[in-house]
Amino acid sequence: MSRPDPKAATRVGVVGTGVIGGGWAAHFLAKGYDVVAYDPGQGAEDRLRRLIDGAWPALEELGLAPGAAKTRLTFADSLEEACTDVAFIQESGPERLDLKQRLLKDIDAAADPETVIASSTSGYGMTEMQRDCARAERTVVGHPFNPPYLVPLVEVVGGERTAADAVDWACDFYDHAGKSVIRMDAELPGFIANRLQEAIWREALHMVAAGEATVDQIDRSITEGPGLRWALMGPCLTFHLAGGEGGMAHMLDHFGPSLKSPWTRLIAPELTQELRDRMVEGCETQAGERSIADLVAERDRKLIAIMKAREAAS
Amino acid sequence: MSRPDPKAATRVGVVGTGVIGGGWAAHFLAKGYDVVAYDPGQGAEDRLRRLIDGAWPALEELGLAPGAAKTRLTFADSLEEACTDVAFIQESGPERLDLKQRLLKDIDAAADPETVIASSTSGYGMTEMQRDCARAERTVVGHPFNPPYLVPLVEVVGGERTAADAVDWACDFYDHAGKSVIRMDAELPGFIANRLQEAIWREALHMVAAGEATVDQIDRSITEGPGLRWALMGPCLTFHLAGGEGGMAHMLDHFGPSLKSPWTRLIAPELTQELRDRMVEGCETQAGERSIADLVAERDRKLIAIMKAREAAS
Repeated sequence: MSRPDPKAATRVGVVGTGVIGGGWAAHFLAKGYDVVAYDPGQGAEDRLRRLIDGAWPALEELGLAPGAAKTRLTFADSLEEACTDVAFIQESGPERLDLKQRLLKDIDAAADPETVIASSTSGYGMTEMQRDCARAERTVVGHPFNPPYLVPLVEVVGGERTAADAVDWACDFYDHAGKSVIRMDAELPGFIANRLQEAIWREALHMVAAGEATVDQIDRSITEGPGLRWALMGPCLTFHLAGGEGGMAHMLDHFGPSLKSPWTRLIAPELTQELRDRMVEGCETQAGERSIADLVAERDRKLIAIMKAREAAS
Repeated sequence: MSRPDPKAATRVGVVGTGVIGGGWAAHFLAKGYDVVAYDPGQGAEDRLRRLIDGAWPALEELGLAPGAAKTRLTFADSLEEACTDVAFIQESGPERLDLKQRLLKDIDAAADPETVIASSTSGYGMTEMQRDCARAERTVVGHPFNPPYLVPLVEVVGGERTAADAVDWACDFYDHAGKSVIRMDAELPGFIANRLQEAIWREALHMVAAGEATVDQIDRSITEGPGLRWALMGPCLTFHLAGGEGGMAHMLDHFGPSLKSPWTRLIAPELTQELRDRMVEGCETQAGERSIADLVAERDRKLIAIMKAREAAS
């Protein structure tokens, strides 16, 4: 069996149906796919159906694809059933390397040889996870954020034995399935978003451990502060605006020395000319035709929309 | 002159009118205060008025306080003018310790002896900044986020010589002036939100420096991923939900080992029983009566509202 057109896929396998796998199932159902799910855990089917029932009103409000229905979920009796006659398989088993290795080996053995298999792993590299797969060339990481049926991001990257065309296929498939894809060229522990999130999380844990801040203060400092901005501009473009009309270049001049300050337990890299230029050029590329004033106006408009939406949905 | 009721203040001094100071001026004007601003920089008045003109449509949309008007801005000819006959002074000078020390000394000398003086510093402690102040007991940190006229957070903390009643007064004043206040009990470099933000920023710089990710990938990984959630739930409550029905306790069991993973260059603290209990209790306190299912429904509702608002404002 050859690999189908990624845009023509209609039936996907979901292996592991906890919070993440169940969220993937809800996402694929809402996008109009048939979903065959499998999880060996006791009561897994009930939990999965409860999760999908809980998510469905949100998905209806966002807009279901034509023909999308909860009834298009099949809970399989075996791993094999979830891995055959499907165009794509999303693995979301427990986050332990030995379990991932075994599960991917079993999926690989059960699946049609061309079917692309993606792992939801939060941070393992595919090179180590695909170790025991006979057809490792079609295994990729497809790392989502919780809940996968709402948060658009998926990070896609292969391992040493993964073929580039499998990564291409997964990116095209996810894109068609309504995800926002970041394709990484090289393996990196935690990928990109989790590294950033983990840096925040560890600094937060340090502060709580040291009695410097409470859980409530930490969460409020984000939702009432920088978290409001991060829904609309990432950390780099945010700081591009913090530099005023001089943008990122001025910001690095002005706040660059704070990289030496003990503002987090994470030591900063040396702010070399090369790093500085990459940051400035990256921000200018993102900004495109938009001046700083345009970006400020856009940020303000979106911030207000987000604050009002947050308030209205309370 | 005695200190006025923080709720009865009508006139504030703003010293330093760059991006942050100018943003404060816009905020106070929109909240119906008279603002006396001073900045010695060439062309500062023009830049300030341009900044306020740029921000005003946003502030009108959010809703101006009765009587609020851009015409209630006075640009002072001297530092003294901005520091007298005002109920409160917000300092937002350049972020260099020696300049902060000199500026606060000058403001302290010019201001009525009871007037509370707050510094917008991004991370210096008030103990070091207030070194040369004769009346240091009324100097506090009031650290905002950009833009101060939209992002609600202000972190308030005193230095060694600051009197508790000045910190109280500043918290009450900011609260009345429409800010969301975090009162810190102890000085901490970078306060809380900047430590979290700086951890993300430094990890981002490392990735760019090492060629592991581009500026565009970093920003998209946030705005399409965890950044969407952080506008509505902080990192702790977010992870409380990632644990499924078991909440933070299950999350720490499940993902705790990842604290040892090289997912960021920041080494995590030891996950002791005490830290674990603090995290679990902190999340349970925040959750209050809301079950995990309630929180999931609330998160989904707000995420959808935010995504729709972001889209509509594009």
